[in-house]
Amino acid sequence: MKIIETNTAPNPRRVRIFLAEKNISVLIENIDLGVTNTADFAKLNPAGRVPVLVLDDGTPISETIAICRYFEALQPEPSLFGGDPLAIATIEMWQRRVEMGLFYQISQVLRHLNPKMAPYEQPQIPEWAEANRPRVGAALEILDTQLSRSRYVAGDSYSVADITALVALDFMKPARLTRPDHLVHLARWHEEVSARQSAKA
Amino acid sequence: MKIIETNTAPNPRRVRIFLAEKNISVLIENIDLGVTNTADFAKLNPAGRVPVLVLDDGTPISETIAICRYFEALQPEPSLFGGDPLAIATIEMWQRRVEMGLFYQISQVLRHLNPKMAPYEQPQIPEWAEANRPRVGAALEILDTQLSRSRYVAGDSYSVADITALVALDFMKPARLTRPDHLVHLARWHEEVSARQSAKA
Repeated sequence: MKIIETNTAPNPRRVRIFLAEKNISVLIENIDLGVTNTADFAKLNPAGRVPVLVLDDGTPISETIAICRYFEALQPEPSLFGGDPLAIATIEMWQRRVEMGLFYQISQVLRHLNPKMAPYEQPQIPEWAEANRPRVGAALEILDTQLSRSRYVAGDSYSVADITALVALDFMKPARLTRPDHLVHLARWHEEVSARQSAKA
Repeated sequence: MKIIETNTAPNPRRVRIFLAEKNISVLIENIDLGVTNTADFAKLNPAGRVPVLVLDDGTPISETIAICRYFEALQPEPSLFGGDPLAIATIEMWQRRVEMGLFYQISQVLRHLNPKMAPYEQPQIPEWAEANRPRVGAALEILDTQLSRSRYVAGDSYSVADITALVALDFMKPARLTRPDHLVHLARWHEEVSARQSAKA
């Protein structure tokens, strides 16, 4: 089994943090982001994205959360997707809110403004990047409100929603987005999850 | 327990089909899409989207897939998210590919071109809609290739990935997108899943 990824990309980091929290070690094969644009890579993942988990029989599993769920099923503890129906639903809700309501918007600001992203995003539409900028701010407010009531993003326990949120927040720097200073609960949480050993993975 | 939704919107239909496949009956409260834009509705879901599941104690669960996972955990059979690690990962991978690589792109074509969607999508950026049009075509080709090898989207069994794909394909009509005639495997699959009783939900 191995994971094909690009070390500097945010989605592979989500998987590395997830595996570190589970204390699971998997062989990593680091590739240049340019390789993801090739026909050979499309056989592994037609969407042309890293990371891809390749099982021992050659079966490729792509999509960050699908890879994480594979390892959650193999080794349920510590649980990062929740145990009972309410926890499962709450973690899924927040994971998706953060991924599709914050992380995605940050990525659109980067992908549609940074000339280095042109090979991966055609056409680049600066107006679409700008439309996503205020959505990042609105999503951060929602997250700050949630973290004023809750230790972690999806409740009292650290979960995959925290991993997505941590990687999203750290991804604001290359996207040249700034976290507003008044979001003190978000800052408290960011400091706490960044101090975990897994954050260095 | 009740589900607040808008009957004509595609995401509520995903939940209705999911519940029909599980043979679970839940009280439905139908609201006008305009209500999702109000401050009261934001207390249920800050993203302002339907459907929302409201539990008996008032706890709101939003995000289609989070609602589906709640019911999968309450009543595991028939399984629509998979049982063993490989099935779980494969279904999650295809559910996400279809949701974020096809359904989302179709929605962007509709939301950024249709004047009726202006209250929900500001600013509307026609160039972004047009950028998504060829992505819909590419995603349909990937799905057709998969369905040339596999009875259902994520393998031999009907799963939540089929539900997302069915609703996405049917959502092409209001988005004024046409399914190419040469995608015969996709057409075979669409006929089969549309004939299930659940498709009428």
